[in-house]
Amino acid sequence: MPHINLPPEIPGIGAAFAFRPEAARPMRDLAHVLLFESGNEGLSSRDRELIATYVSSKNETQFCKLSHGAAAAHHKGGSQELVAAVWSNPDAAPIPDKLKALLAIAGRVQSDPKTVTADLVETARNYGATDLEIHDTVLIAAAFCMYNRYVDGLATWQPSNEEMYVSMGKQLAEKGYRQPSTSTNQHVL
Amino acid sequence: MPHINLPPEIPGIGAAFAFRPEAARPMRDLAHVLLFESGNEGLSSRDRELIATYVSSKNETQFCKLSHGAAAAHHKGGSQELVAAVWSNPDAAPIPDKLKALLAIAGRVQSDPKTVTADLVETARNYGATDLEIHDTVLIAAAFCMYNRYVDGLATWQPSNEEMYVSMGKQLAEKGYRQPSTSTNQHVL
Repeated sequence: MPHINLPPEIPGIGAAFAFRPEAARPMRDLAHVLLFESGNEGLSSRDRELIATYVSSKNETQFCKLSHGAAAAHHKGGSQELVAAVWSNPDAAPIPDKLKALLAIAGRVQSDPKTVTADLVETARNYGATDLEIHDTVLIAAAFCMYNRYVDGLATWQPSNEEMYVSMGKQLAEKGYRQPSTSTNQHVL
Repeated sequence: MPHINLPPEIPGIGAAFAFRPEAARPMRDLAHVLLFESGNEGLSSRDRELIATYVSSKNETQFCKLSHGAAAAHHKGGSQELVAAVWSNPDAAPIPDKLKALLAIAGRVQSDPKTVTADLVETARNYGATDLEIHDTVLIAAAFCMYNRYVDGLATWQPSNEEMYVSMGKQLAEKGYRQPSTSTNQHVL
């Protein structure tokens, strides 16, 4: 049960957003910029969502892991099998070396950001990563350490209905994060 | 040295904000809502900044710890001695029991948000904490797990000039977080 009185019909972060709309707006805007709007600059939205679901997986936040996994799967070049491979071990997943190197950086940001070494960054750069891609990787990983803690720290309702997450993922991949709607499916991050 | 090519004259998170203004705007907005604009709703801005500096202290992010510590000290009822007492041990600091209970929740959000127990929340409630105060405590702590990781994950420049932080703290406490200016002192979080 959530620690505070959240709307019971809305799952995950959407319930917290409904409770505190003044904070929800910039949190939605940040996700929109990082995951959706910037999908043509450097990293694709699929890759950005893979970083988001990987960090959420490491934080064991089911709601964010499954919704962003579904979004990654819905984007061009994505699939549920690919997402599962990244959760399991990015180094063994069928993704480019550059993305493997960026996921290694994201993993360090999640566990201890002071362990992002110059060597790790150099490896990513050698595989073609730009400053913008390295920056966005660090910030997406950092941001999901916030979103994940928000969802878990309030003990929000995190359903295990797989179809719901598929529907959320489609919505997020096609529409982005900025506009909530009256549908509970859109109250997600 | 920062991992990417950041403006060398700007310390801490301000350099990252200057590199990526599209992401900086919602990140500044979120801090403004949580730390400044909501200072008349439930928790005072002093208490909000104490939560921010306490979490940053636990994450060992000097830049955020010192700038938000200076902001807390500048607010009404704040002092550098009070801030140092909170860094050292909130339970022994000269603050109300409600704030001690909220800082205990913030500490759990930082280390492992799944360990925010119903008992901890009940204790805060027994000392008079409202749902909004509990919510904002969780979100401020979660947000600083993002800001701290952003600053450390990019290896931004974190100077140790004490006077600079006093000046930053005054600026943040008086003006808030929304508007950057041409002064490097205002490129802070």
